[in-house]
Amino acid sequence: MKNKTVSSIGEFGLIEIIKRNFAKINYNKNVVARIGDDSFCFKAGKNTICITKDMLVENVHFKKDWITAKKLGQKAIEVSVSDIAAMGNVKPKYAFIGLGIPANANKKFIQDLANGVEAVCNKYKMTVAGGDTVKADKITISVTVVGITKDKIVKRSGAKPGDLIGVTNTFGDAGAGVALLYKHGIKYKYSKEERALIAKQNNQTARVNEAHKIAKYLTSLTDASDGLYISIGLLTKGSNLGADIYIDKAPLSSSFTKIFKDSKKQLDFALFGGEDYELVFTVPKSKAKIVQKLVPQVTYIGEINSSKKVKYFHNGKEKKIKYLGFKHF
Amino acid sequence: MKNKTVSSIGEFGLIEIIKRNFAKINYNKNVVARIGDDSFCFKAGKNTICITKDMLVENVHFKKDWITAKKLGQKAIEVSVSDIAAMGNVKPKYAFIGLGIPANANKKFIQDLANGVEAVCNKYKMTVAGGDTVKADKITISVTVVGITKDKIVKRSGAKPGDLIGVTNTFGDAGAGVALLYKHGIKYKYSKEERALIAKQNNQTARVNEAHKIAKYLTSLTDASDGLYISIGLLTKGSNLGADIYIDKAPLSSSFTKIFKDSKKQLDFALFGGEDYELVFTVPKSKAKIVQKLVPQVTYIGEINSSKKVKYFHNGKEKKIKYLGFKHF
Repeated sequence: MKNKTVSSIGEFGLIEIIKRNFAKINYNKNVVARIGDDSFCFKAGKNTICITKDMLVENVHFKKDWITAKKLGQKAIEVSVSDIAAMGNVKPKYAFIGLGIPANANKKFIQDLANGVEAVCNKYKMTVAGGDTVKADKITISVTVVGITKDKIVKRSGAKPGDLIGVTNTFGDAGAGVALLYKHGIKYKYSKEERALIAKQNNQTARVNEAHKIAKYLTSLTDASDGLYISIGLLTKGSNLGADIYIDKAPLSSSFTKIFKDSKKQLDFALFGGEDYELVFTVPKSKAKIVQKLVPQVTYIGEINSSKKVKYFHNGKEKKIKYLGFKHF
Repeated sequence: MKNKTVSSIGEFGLIEIIKRNFAKINYNKNVVARIGDDSFCFKAGKNTICITKDMLVENVHFKKDWITAKKLGQKAIEVSVSDIAAMGNVKPKYAFIGLGIPANANKKFIQDLANGVEAVCNKYKMTVAGGDTVKADKITISVTVVGITKDKIVKRSGAKPGDLIGVTNTFGDAGAGVALLYKHGIKYKYSKEERALIAKQNNQTARVNEAHKIAKYLTSLTDASDGLYISIGLLTKGSNLGADIYIDKAPLSSSFTKIFKDSKKQLDFALFGGEDYELVFTVPKSKAKIVQKLVPQVTYIGEINSSKKVKYFHNGKEKKIKYLGFKHF
């Protein structure tokens, strides 16, 4: 079994290989957040520079039939900015775009993609700083976003027993939207609510303003790119602690609960759906109210404890949760 | 002709579309080098942060049969570090790796690639700061390198009439190595000299030490990733000036001149070969000697003038040069 292929070891196996190799390299003293946090951050004088890198590949992360080029450009930037927002009060400043493009791609597609990138960069007053264009079999978009702050960053570690676990907005919509597309395709006559779920999946908004407002009160923070279950695991593991999660408190949208009435389906999408890009954080109980006042879309769904285990409760009863996430390979 | 494909507009057409769209975005006052230079650089307090991003795609930038995974990892980092070195006395500090990997790629390949990345990062005392792994049809390596300096950066603009044009080491070897591989394949019995040329193409070394030593004397600087002709064009256009180039002075290695005896072939590889990753720079005449003393591998091959045209001379006679570069699309 020496020459295992990537599909046999899976994505997490692959990340392990990469981490193990790269972990040998010494971090210098200016590094304040490293591999395993949402962004890599280092100090340069009084500033902390945060950098995040994402890659979107056609047919893996998006299908050309399911998203317009402009929305794809917007989404590519929003999801990277979300990783910057997940570090707290950090201002996204510069974006780099690497485009891998098939020779038969048309000019309008690229222009629309660029327009989408531009729209989001303007919204955040970010500069498109550069990039690279190469030939590729499939459209590949590699985005690097640089953020700057003079404040202390908020990492995935730092939670304390007794802290509340909070989230912004609702969960499950984007994952449900993808599921609908897989089931019926793009040309199906969807209801208004179904269209809202599908739209959510192509219209992510990084929670930059929210993060900026509440960062100074938080003890740990991440964004929910891969679903609530993974995010809660990152914060508890990051702090070497456990949590009780009252999963019936997970906020769900009305479109979502109208379409998916079964509570097991609801839980599956909220926990494992992914692409919600909401904030998931911990906050001392004494600061929970001010945080909710600053960002009314905050809901508290659990509490950190020292057990090192995450327990899920549904209407007061413990519920065993089995990981049902998305597999890349 | 509204829906032109990428192959019909070519790589430069594509870059134009991207630039035109992205040029609308305002650069903030902290940006000191932007799209069109070797790195994007911005001020953060007393530091200047330089960032460069490159993407290598299987069968476009490399063939798996022609390079080992370890060398590929090394090369990916060296070529990005070369873009940092091309900004002057800038220390490469952090590298981000985005890997697109086919599901049937084997574990050893990825481990070897990671080892190559690690070896070069250790050499430059750089930290591998993070990255992303996604499924892709072809191996895709996206590298972002971050450098830091407290010094003034050296851009592609800044040359003055009368400045000499200098280069480090020799030109044409890497391009000749690629040409040999295309002609005979990897299994052919190559001579010692031919092997040296082929090796050069897979063993780039960014000229970091050289750039650090001479940066403060230079008026403009770039690296020769796409051949001498392109680099000279970048420096003269960057400064809105022209130059006389004494192309018979372009330094060539003994392996190269042994294999390619025809002077036209020699010129073609030196001017258009690419992947030499040597420094190409301008320096005031009064500083030319000290620069050559600090880096003895420097050769002067021409002089900047105000003509806005680049003229090539071979043994005293003007020689019309027609662009014969590599086409991505």
